[in-house]
Amino acid sequence: MASNAIDRLAAGLGRLPGIGEKSARRIALDVLTWKTEDVRALAELLVEVKTRVRTCGACFNLSESDPCPICGDERRDGSQVMVVDFVGDLLAMERMQAYRGLYHVLGGRISPLDGIGPEELNILPLVARLNGGGIREVILANGPTVEGDATAQYLKQVLGTHDVTVTQIARGLPVGSDLALADQVTLSRALDGRREL
Amino acid sequence: MASNAIDRLAAGLGRLPGIGEKSARRIALDVLTWKTEDVRALAELLVEVKTRVRTCGACFNLSESDPCPICGDERRDGSQVMVVDFVGDLLAMERMQAYRGLYHVLGGRISPLDGIGPEELNILPLVARLNGGGIREVILANGPTVEGDATAQYLKQVLGTHDVTVTQIARGLPVGSDLALADQVTLSRALDGRREL
Repeated sequence: MASNAIDRLAAGLGRLPGIGEKSARRIALDVLTWKTEDVRALAELLVEVKTRVRTCGACFNLSESDPCPICGDERRDGSQVMVVDFVGDLLAMERMQAYRGLYHVLGGRISPLDGIGPEELNILPLVARLNGGGIREVILANGPTVEGDATAQYLKQVLGTHDVTVTQIARGLPVGSDLALADQVTLSRALDGRREL
Repeated sequence: MASNAIDRLAAGLGRLPGIGEKSARRIALDVLTWKTEDVRALAELLVEVKTRVRTCGACFNLSESDPCPICGDERRDGSQVMVVDFVGDLLAMERMQAYRGLYHVLGGRISPLDGIGPEELNILPLVARLNGGGIREVILANGPTVEGDATAQYLKQVLGTHDVTVTQIARGLPVGSDLALADQVTLSRALDGRREL
C-alpha cells in the first residue's frame, strides 16, 4: 500500500552510515516536501563532489587537488608526519589549527577479525616517504582502540629500523570529563602518562 | 585546510532532518569512499522519486498516482476516514495491515507558536469530502502532543456540525513499556480510557 517510490528512496538513504530504517523513511518523506530544485541541488552536489575529490598521492588525504593543499603548502613543516587512521581524523586535527606538520592517512586500522592486515593499509607508501628523506619525527595518532593500538605497535616495529623519532599522542582523561566516571583503562593510561608540573 | 568540496557536501547533507554537523561530515567522508556509480545512483534516485511522487487530490497522501493506491482501492471501506498529521503517520498505520478504511493527511498540526493555524492544514478539503457524502466515521489519529490535541479539538468542533461519528484512537500505556516509568499524563490518560474486561 505504501508508495513504492518512497520505499525505494528510503532504502537508498539507508545505505548512508548511521542512518537506520526509521531515519531513512523520515528523511525520505522530508525530502519530498522540499522544492524540486533543492533536491536536484543536493543530488548534483553528491555527484560533483564525488567526481572532483581525489586522493593525495603523498599523504592519502582527500581533496580537489593532488598533492592536497596540506602537502602542497610550503609553509608547513615537512620534517613532521602525523599518522592517522582516517581522513576524518586529519580534518579533526586541522580544525585544532595548531599542528603545522604533514599527515599520512592509513585508510583504516589493523583488524584481523575484519580481514584488515598491514598490507590493506597505506603503510608501504609511508615507508617510501621515510626513505625519501627529510622526515625527522613520525607522530602516531591512531585511534585509542584495540585496533588503533595494534596498528601503532606494528608501525613502531616497522619504523624502528629507520632513523626517525616515533612519538604517540597522549592518552588520558579528556578535558571536561569526570574522573569518577572514567573507565579503568583510561585512568591507567592517564596515570602512566603523568608529567612533572 | 580542509577540502572545500567535502565541507560543501557536508553542508548539503546537513540540511536533511536529524543530521547534525558531525553526522553530515561523517556521511560525506563515507560517500567519498563509495563507487562513483553508487553515488550517482543515489543522486538519481533522489531526483527521480521527487519528480515522480505527487500529492493525492483526495487524501493528500504521497504516491506515484493520483488518486493514490489507497483512495483508488475499491476494496477499502470508504465510510471510514482516518485523519493523520503527516504522511509518515499514514505509512505507519498501513504497516499495521489492520485498517481498511481511507485516510486524510492534514499536513501538520495546529501550532500558533509556529504560525500554523487551521487554514494552513488540509481541513477545508476534509469538510468537502464529508459534504460529498458516504463517510460515516472520522477517526482522529493526531499525534499525542499538545499540538495534536489542539488539532483534534478543533476538528471535533468543525466536524460536530456534520452527520458523522467522530472517534479518536486510544491514548494509554504503550505495549511493552514500564508502568513505573510512564509519565503522569500518559498514566492519567490510560486510567481515563479504562475499559471493562
